[in-house]
This record gives sequence, structure tokens and C-alpha cells, in this order.
Amino acid sequence: MNLLIPKKWPHFFVGNATPDFLFIRPSGNPIDAKGFEQMITGDIVQEKAEITKIHRFEFLSDNIVMCIFTLGSKFTYKGTPNDDLPTVTSIFKKVNNVWKIHWMQRSTGNSDLSLWD
Amino acid sequence: MNLLIPKKWPHFFVGNATPDFLFIRPSGNPIDAKGFEQMITGDIVQEKAEITKIHRFEFLSDNIVMCIFTLGSKFTYKGTPNDDLPTVTSIFKKVNNVWKIHWMQRSTGNSDLSLWD
Repeated sequence: MNLLIPKKWPHFFVGNATPDFLFIRPSGNPIDAKGFEQMITGDIVQEKAEITKIHRFEFLSDNIVMCIFTLGSKFTYKGTPNDDLPTVTSIFKKVNNVWKIHWMQRSTGNSDLSLWD
Repeated sequence: MNLLIPKKWPHFFVGNATPDFLFIRPSGNPIDAKGFEQMITGDIVQEKAEITKIHRFEFLSDNIVMCIFTLGSKFTYKGTPNDDLPTVTSIFKKVNNVWKIHWMQRSTGNSDLSLWD
């Protein structure tokens, strides 16, 4: 499932996140939608970003979804190529009947997909 | 705030988590409450585990809390000492009027606490 068109990907959070959205990087450092957009359009050349496998998709309430998935992310960061398979925890919130991404934390890139079987 | 007494810490999730609880390690690999208990009592000697700072504590609904915090974790893993400052995303769920931990993802250990200011 190739969800994310590379050209639109850097701007995704800016248009589809709650105002207090943060993305937690593998380092543990937070970045907001605008900061993510700048990082992606500056230091990162994204080649591929797709949801490899959804492990859990759970309605925590009518307006809250928790989605846990493995991301397949191929990109070049400051010239260094990466082919990552991180685990992502994401929280979505329905605001005025529109689903927005509210929180996201991404692990480092070498997760073992077989551990989810 | 030193929440976790080293002796009881390895067993915390077994007694206080939902049945489908998973802990996502910095690698992205999941581990369940029982597996965590075994890892902690086997390979890890925990010296300190405390909540250094809570960045967000939000009721997503009456029965769901999302808590984002920086953990201060001092431990020895297979003989190697670690003094970690990871970011943790955690989800708590009230089940039969008792709060249980439902999901947890932890970053690597060198986050920059000043980025939260």
C-alpha cells in the first residue's frame, strides 16, 4: 500500500494534523508539522514511504483511533541512503468530523517484522 | 519523581497492563508484559527508572489517557552501563474502573530535553 506520494509527503502533517500534533523521532526528539515539512524538504530526499503492515487499528473511542504499523521508508538523509523498517505508533482524532493525526512516534529503522507474527 | 522501585519494576506490566499490551522498544521490536519481565530480570540490572518530565497528559476520552514523558533510566544491559533519557508515548485505559497501561513506545536514550521548552 503506497500511501504517500513523495511530492506531497512533506506537507502531509501541515494539512492533516491537530494544532498540537508532534512527531517523535527515533532519537526521542519532538518535531512539529512545520518542522517536519522543513526537515523533509531540506535534508531528506524521500524515495518511498509506505505502510508495510498494520499491526493494530483500534478505536479507543468514537473519535480516537490508535494505529500501529510498520513503515517502509526509503530515503536519502544528508546524502546517506536509508532503507528503513521502523515501527510507528500513531493516534488519530476526529475533529469537526474530520480525521486528523494527533500524535506519532517512530522507532529506529531496523525492526524485525517477523516478531509480529 | 521516583515512581518505580527497582525490585518491583520488572513485574509492573504483568500486573497493570491490558491483556493485549505491547511495549515497543527503541528498535521497533514489540515485547509483551511477560517478555519484558523476563528481559528485565535476565539481561538488565535496573538502577533507576523515574519520570523526569511529563510533556503531555491528555484525556482522549473518559476512559483513555495519553501520557508523553521523558524517562530517566539508569541500568546495566548485559554488563554495559546505560544512563538513558528516552521519550515515551504511553496509552492508559480504564477497564472495570481500574487504570491499565495499554500501549507504550520508547525511543532511544539520548533525547534532548531542552527541545520540549
